[in-house]
Amino acid sequence: MKLKVYVDRMSQPSRAILIFCKMNGIDFEEVQISIAKREHRSPEFKKMNPMGQVPAISDGEFTLFESHAILIHLACAFPGVADHWYPADLFRRAKINSVLDWHHSNLRRGAATYVQNTVLAPVLGIASNPQAAVEAEKLLSSSLSKIESIWLKGNGKFLLGGFEPSIADISLVCEIMQLELLDEKDRSRILGPHKKVLEWIENTKTATRPHFEEVHEVLYGLKTKFQEQRSTESNKQQD
Amino acid sequence: MKLKVYVDRMSQPSRAILIFCKMNGIDFEEVQISIAKREHRSPEFKKMNPMGQVPAISDGEFTLFESHAILIHLACAFPGVADHWYPADLFRRAKINSVLDWHHSNLRRGAATYVQNTVLAPVLGIASNPQAAVEAEKLLSSSLSKIESIWLKGNGKFLLGGFEPSIADISLVCEIMQLELLDEKDRSRILGPHKKVLEWIENTKTATRPHFEEVHEVLYGLKTKFQEQRSTESNKQQD
Repeated sequence: MKLKVYVDRMSQPSRAILIFCKMNGIDFEEVQISIAKREHRSPEFKKMNPMGQVPAISDGEFTLFESHAILIHLACAFPGVADHWYPADLFRRAKINSVLDWHHSNLRRGAATYVQNTVLAPVLGIASNPQAAVEAEKLLSSSLSKIESIWLKGNGKFLLGGFEPSIADISLVCEIMQLELLDEKDRSRILGPHKKVLEWIENTKTATRPHFEEVHEVLYGLKTKFQEQRSTESNKQQD
Repeated sequence: MKLKVYVDRMSQPSRAILIFCKMNGIDFEEVQISIAKREHRSPEFKKMNPMGQVPAISDGEFTLFESHAILIHLACAFPGVADHWYPADLFRRAKINSVLDWHHSNLRRGAATYVQNTVLAPVLGIASNPQAAVEAEKLLSSSLSKIESIWLKGNGKFLLGGFEPSIADISLVCEIMQLELLDEKDRSRILGPHKKVLEWIENTKTATRPHFEEVHEVLYGLKTKFQEQRSTESNKQQD
């Protein structure tokens, strides 16, 4: 039975899974689960994933959610995945697990909370919390600083001094990519000071092309839409 | 060179690592890093762990932080760890990884934020945020419900229907144990409705004795201190 990957391309961990599968020639069926239409909360989807979240996978009777667990599983269970994605060496593997665990309560929490409480809240029709946005920006900025000073130290192009990307590079870079949706001023203020992070994003894009850009097309589309809306609003104010 | 485990027994993931090492006869040296004395932020400790957090381990030149990454590494790299802690079977392992990943943004976030913004803030001399406590309680309660309905389903005594504990059982139960510090009324309101969770905590304590209780002695000591303080305050109010 073919691997099914349940995703919404607007979700950053969904994009990470898709890029990984495509990069490694894994044969899979992409099943669209629209968060905007609340399909992830439908009784039908919840039969497969009781947590009601994307991404998730099913492979025959076996089902799994949580994007890091999925990336690790795909790297270990599917033949032909190059070692650099999730090395067999226990010590290198442990370091990647450490980055992935750290990610949850730091970069992910900072980036997702900031984007939700600035550009996404009005679109999703929920109240934005300006105080939460302020705190999230602090966490996001300190996370980016730590990535630079701790994990991008050395001459490697990727996290942990790697010369080839691992699943941690895909996961963390996909998270940062949601900042594309921000107003250019906010994005520059947050990302601008982190030159090494910007370089690493480019390195990861290059190492995973053409899949990286193809999977991010939905995000780029929304970015353009937001830019046009801002431009229209700004013109109205000038009229 | 002997494994060094850097911990503060007041930290729930530190306790999880200690219980795991003791249960599996791993030869290690426990190095106390007092969070209250800010030893985790000392330049000396940060040379070993630049994130400045406990728990962490060092094994010769190799260093590692993030408790889940540490538990996984110890289970894989040290001989004699029974398979049930972190099964070699890729599918069972993937499910455990899924629980551990979920834990970060759900049970851990809910429990730690709630305890910090109720009983710990006054002790740590930081301002408590009542709104954060309200939201954390919601997340904590919904996390406990999900543990019951999703992972404690079936006849097993442990998560994922297991008949023996895994590293996920230790990690999650240690997290819940910090609720011991709460006022009895608050603790009962939060934990009381979750009979299966209460049973599972007892099963985990039994399966890991005598180490579980020994490692939690510091927590029980603080619990008694808090109870005495509450009792004194209550008597004063009645005078």
